[in-house]
Amino acid sequence: MKISPNHPRFRSLETRERLVQGFQSGIVASQGLIAQGRGEAFDYMLGEVTPKSSRLATKAASALLLGAKSPVISINGNTAALVARDVVKLAHSVPAELEVNLFHRSLARERRIASLLKRNGADRVLGVDSKTKVRIRGVASPRRSVDAQGIGNADVVLIPLEDGDRAEALRKAGKAVIAIDLNPMSRTSLAATVTIVDNIIRAIPELLRITEKMKPLSRSRLGAIASSFDNEKNVARAMKDMIHYMQGWA
Amino acid sequence: MKISPNHPRFRSLETRERLVQGFQSGIVASQGLIAQGRGEAFDYMLGEVTPKSSRLATKAASALLLGAKSPVISINGNTAALVARDVVKLAHSVPAELEVNLFHRSLARERRIASLLKRNGADRVLGVDSKTKVRIRGVASPRRSVDAQGIGNADVVLIPLEDGDRAEALRKAGKAVIAIDLNPMSRTSLAATVTIVDNIIRAIPELLRITEKMKPLSRSRLGAIASSFDNEKNVARAMKDMIHYMQGWA
Repeated sequence: MKISPNHPRFRSLETRERLVQGFQSGIVASQGLIAQGRGEAFDYMLGEVTPKSSRLATKAASALLLGAKSPVISINGNTAALVARDVVKLAHSVPAELEVNLFHRSLARERRIASLLKRNGADRVLGVDSKTKVRIRGVASPRRSVDAQGIGNADVVLIPLEDGDRAEALRKAGKAVIAIDLNPMSRTSLAATVTIVDNIIRAIPELLRITEKMKPLSRSRLGAIASSFDNEKNVARAMKDMIHYMQGWA
Repeated sequence: MKISPNHPRFRSLETRERLVQGFQSGIVASQGLIAQGRGEAFDYMLGEVTPKSSRLATKAASALLLGAKSPVISINGNTAALVARDVVKLAHSVPAELEVNLFHRSLARERRIASLLKRNGADRVLGVDSKTKVRIRGVASPRRSVDAQGIGNADVVLIPLEDGDRAEALRKAGKAVIAIDLNPMSRTSLAATVTIVDNIIRAIPELLRITEKMKPLSRSRLGAIASSFDNEKNVARAMKDMIHYMQGWA
């Protein structure tokens, strides 16, 4: 379907359309469509713009990624459908590994996502060859199975659009977790080391931009930025942004 | 998928499952799954119960429907998938016409929805035969095309799960609009004559119950109830309910 660019909510509708195309081509799960809708509602309450709190989190996230020994970016269907190109650029910039990790797992979908990432410039995509998988404790979904060379070995994991279950398990496994989640009340948002409360279509390009900018910083400077970040306080700030937005309407 | 009735969010998960089934049988558009997700997020902020503000709106909506000369209930895929039986009962109770009107239009889907409504007791379903269509001004989507005998001629239109574009256009065309929308900030909610901020699975049965109860009232009494309703104030009340819920987290 063609959406008129004159429609007042063109960008949101166009994003939705891109996700539907991803669904039709077997990249996105049907549950991923519903999850997108939930995100849309929370984005609405941010006025569909990146809040200040998210900029602070993005800075801390870039510091964590650049300071990491083995950083990994976890990719699911929605992330691939919406920001494949920029997430590959981010992986090159850090540099970090890319790993496909799905809640609603199928080998066909894993392969399609990996091939989409490769078409967008990725050299290597982990998580598809099941021979190298290890389990993380405390996850009930198929997401428990991760690549031994990827998330299994990572010290910092970026998990855009995650389930709370695995976010908590990764923390318990001693890894620093960066989440991108529009719902500041979610278990993912509360469990992560750094939570970027923002729409992934804005958050990943911004994370790429800040990472490029912070690259010249020393390891100790990066460490200082990451450790001065208070996630609990920052998530509460994002909540307040939403409440403030809603109060403007009430 | 079988969901345990003991699950704390059973009703919400079961509703989601029903919508996915509607999608698989060609009643619901893939975009309808996304819309459902949006609704879920807002319903979460109502604590998944009908707020007081919604009861007031429902009373005003029943008064409008019962006092109308040519009331029409507009039906899309999600409405049909979730509340076909009760919406047909409501149409009989008022009585009102039923008209299929889709944002993501296809003749096959229109026909499937009409046949679902008929299986649930509808005598006549408008909006499927394209020969009788007229256009309403100011709508950019396929929803601009409406049935001349239905929405085209209506004085009161009930639009569950609507887009803001058409809600505004219907108001401009001089019609009274009743919206059911979980997002109190949406253009639909603000444009409507009466907005019921509630989940359609609770709102339609409640609207049916109240309509049955108010049937004996005189035309002038109905008019007084409808005209004393202040939609702007009432939508703000629903907003405050949500803000109150979020403040519990901040």
